[in-house]
Amino acid sequence: MANAVLTISSKNYGSWSLRGWLLAKLARLEFTEEFVSPDDPAMRAEILLLSPSILVPALRHNDIKVWDTLAIGEYLNEIKPKAGLLPADPKARAHCRAICGEMHSGFASLRSALPMNIKAHFPGFKVWSRAQGDIDRIVAIWSECLATYGGPYLFGKQPCMADAMYAPVVTRFLTYDVALDPVCAAYCQCIMALPAMQEWVAQAQQEPDEIDELDAEF
Amino acid sequence: MANAVLTISSKNYGSWSLRGWLLAKLARLEFTEEFVSPDDPAMRAEILLLSPSILVPALRHNDIKVWDTLAIGEYLNEIKPKAGLLPADPKARAHCRAICGEMHSGFASLRSALPMNIKAHFPGFKVWSRAQGDIDRIVAIWSECLATYGGPYLFGKQPCMADAMYAPVVTRFLTYDVALDPVCAAYCQCIMALPAMQEWVAQAQQEPDEIDELDAEF
Repeated sequence: MANAVLTISSKNYGSWSLRGWLLAKLARLEFTEEFVSPDDPAMRAEILLLSPSILVPALRHNDIKVWDTLAIGEYLNEIKPKAGLLPADPKARAHCRAICGEMHSGFASLRSALPMNIKAHFPGFKVWSRAQGDIDRIVAIWSECLATYGGPYLFGKQPCMADAMYAPVVTRFLTYDVALDPVCAAYCQCIMALPAMQEWVAQAQQEPDEIDELDAEF
Repeated sequence: MANAVLTISSKNYGSWSLRGWLLAKLARLEFTEEFVSPDDPAMRAEILLLSPSILVPALRHNDIKVWDTLAIGEYLNEIKPKAGLLPADPKARAHCRAICGEMHSGFASLRSALPMNIKAHFPGFKVWSRAQGDIDRIVAIWSECLATYGGPYLFGKQPCMADAMYAPVVTRFLTYDVALDPVCAAYCQCIMALPAMQEWVAQAQQEPDEIDELDAEF
């Protein structure tokens, strides 16, 4: 019986929910999902303000409650050290945490201009110049990681915390038809092919439409 | 000889610089300081955009370069485990990381309405209502920690990562004359009395005025 509960919001729109859920899957934690209502302020906070909230995602495990996506990742790494959420090499681990931190606190223009929306596809979408700056930085981060650690994931042969943190960006690049070089495009395909990602995307596709009403408020 | 270099910006205005510097001091790391120029885009990014940047603060230690304040904190905790940057108890540690994460990615209204400015003092400052929401949340975080772990610091008898993350908020509450209950007011006094904080504040007071020109752009 799972003694862990992960609270999340929309699978189509909830980028922080996806990160937390993917971290738990990569850690091979057995957990049940709990959804906040689309009317809940936490849902609106995550989706409309496009920032992490204190309620979503949140993990209850035994008597421990942990919120904030990075804190959930560090907690999962402690209880499931063999899952490799963080690279074993100290230098790579510091690098991994640095780019996770960048994602956690930055890229505001990307978040507001290209919100996660897995169901949608906008061929030829015109990217606002400031969001393009965020995209360029992300491409630089990915390119350096893939060149340094040899791929196919950001820190080598298995997906880690950084891949979970950047996974919603992968879906955005596909949704908004962002042009990428072959190396970064192959990385996106690799992330989308993860069984956990396929499971999440399939559930997002089936999400009831009432949540879409929030979308009108962007 | 110190083999660690911490890159920071203004001691009067640089709230992320203060966090990184205080983490290094609490970890008892021997390091030298390197300043970005007031004209440097990194300085402007940190001070004017009020968000963490990839350049400030940044730590070079032996052959490792780590940026992003939380990543620096986790790195320091790994190389200096006895310094107690994170609580020893797993439940308290998860709690500590959660509130550090909240500070790292949130409180945008507080940041823009009450920017760190150690030299200044604004008695009777009128706080904008949205910033008051951030203040209320911070008071709730501090009150819960001080009640749960017994003070005088957020997680008990010694300052940790969370105290470093919230230290710039303490200076803001004093600068902008924010009314606090006696428990939170005593916590602020306790943080300001830390030798490292006194050293930072003394240096901020002596900072050359040319950096003040940036202030006009808020």
